Amino acid sequence: MLYIIGLGLGDEQDITLKGLEAVKKCNKVYMEAYTSLLSFGLSTDGLSNLEKLYGKPIILADREMVEEKAHEILSEAHDAHVAFLVVGDPFGATTHTDLVVRAKKMAIDVKIVHNASVMNAIGICGLQLYRYGETVSIPFFTETWRPDSFYEKIQRNRMMGLHTLCLLDIRVKEPTLESLCRGRKTYEPPRYMTINTAIEQLLEIVEAREESAYNKDTECVGLARLGSEDQMIVAGTMKQLQLIDFGAPLHCLVITGKTHPVEEEMLDFYRCRT
Amino acid sequence: MLYIIGLGLGDEQDITLKGLEAVKKCNKVYMEAYTSLLSFGLSTDGLSNLEKLYGKPIILADREMVEEKAHEILSEAHDAHVAFLVVGDPFGATTHTDLVVRAKKMAIDVKIVHNASVMNAIGICGLQLYRYGETVSIPFFTETWRPDSFYEKIQRNRMMGLHTLCLLDIRVKEPTLESLCRGRKTYEPPRYMTINTAIEQLLEIVEAREESAYNKDTECVGLARLGSEDQMIVAGTMKQLQLIDFGAPLHCLVITGKTHPVEEEMLDFYRCRT
Repeated sequence: MLYIIGLGLGDEQDITLKGLEAVKKCNKVYMEAYTSLLSFGLSTDGLSNLEKLYGKPIILADREMVEEKAHEILSEAHDAHVAFLVVGDPFGATTHTDLVVRAKKMAIDVKIVHNASVMNAIGICGLQLYRYGETVSIPFFTETWRPDSFYEKIQRNRMMGLHTLCLLDIRVKEPTLESLCRGRKTYEPPRYMTINTAIEQLLEIVEAREESAYNKDTECVGLARLGSEDQMIVAGTMKQLQLIDFGAPLHCLVITGKTHPVEEEMLDFYRCRT
Repeated sequence: MLYIIGLGLGDEQDITLKGLEAVKKCNKVYMEAYTSLLSFGLSTDGLSNLEKLYGKPIILADREMVEEKAHEILSEAHDAHVAFLVVGDPFGATTHTDLVVRAKKMAIDVKIVHNASVMNAIGICGLQLYRYGETVSIPFFTETWRPDSFYEKIQRNRMMGLHTLCLLDIRVKEPTLESLCRGRKTYEPPRYMTINTAIEQLLEIVEAREESAYNKDTECVGLARLGSEDQMIVAGTMKQLQLIDFGAPLHCLVITGKTHPVEEEMLDFYRCRT
């Protein structure tokens, strides 16, 4: 049996009773990505708060490992209980559909344990979930690669008065250019896009296109560390949010569409006062 | 302190450790809607599985009570810990924004405990969450009231190749027409829209409008009891799904947009073979 278990967004206490019970039953526990484990806290003995809660070790599986060793992980799930832990919901922003498809093809039973993900927890800012259009991902611009295909999606959402959830780029275990040339893998330090960078890029695009789906006076909501004890939510114009230090990752951004009075009332609590 | 706690979608084991800890701390525990408590199972001693898990009574609060007694509930939260339980996520399909706004205006601290809701758990059908357009709600048609404003939203989503999540009507504690006339409140038995009824109404609309945003051959996914042990997921055309008995509520329906090969692979596992 393969259990794919959502851990929710905050800390180790965000797992469900059903999820914890499944983990305790499992002979092997995998977790996607190293940085995720770090975000759950490491203590002096090197164990994570998750491992302490579960009373068993966790095997860290980055994307590379999942892709290369999926067959191995899945084979174990043939005769034993294997848990695969995922931050958020199993089918949230990051998809694990492929792992499920492979498992099903190998006739392995799969159980999903759902949890909150950014896709629904974003509701906390007060903008109603059924008033969102298509979600977009904003990748880091580089000197030579400045993709902006998400602009049309934002534009369409805005034209229909819908809100847009912008998921901001996470670059973890990216091989350095040097290592790619030398054929020996070394990795860049992890990078997480801030709300400030996202807005900078968004404004650059609209300027370059000489269009106006949004501008520096467009109302947005910036959210940092959503679901954590120290989450930060600020509503304001792009210009206002650009000046705010939202602190540690992860960040995300909502570009508002047409708002309803009840939405406005809630946004007021988060409004930037500068 | 007011805790608004998401219970997730399945049974009492879907609460998070954080949620359970908060409930145990609370002097009073409210829960929205009677039918929700029933869905968590009642035992012979009349206690729900939730009450057994929490070791304390739950006060059922229907929409009327929440609206009329909100001030009372909130006043209690001034000096004590009060929990307000919500199926799914606190800000999921049903909104509790208003309660939060009122609490904040009364200077009461509010803590949100997130959980899965239909808005993200729907990901289990394999259609990627960031490929959904605006969500629609489909209300029961009556003899005299056949609203179809959601049609345009489906049409827009389809034109952009996006999937549409259709939330189906729930009618609980609706006063009977007779009781409204007589001024004494009696209620209709609860009704939950089935996938079959939803499709029937959807096809009626498209026929009456002589339009073609979708038709009986449009691919959909029907989901019943999402997140429960006995959930049922079937992919097929409207015509195919209309012939299927999805069993007990709750039901929801996804009208697919343009699908990606990975989405198709996953849908294949759910595909109707008739």
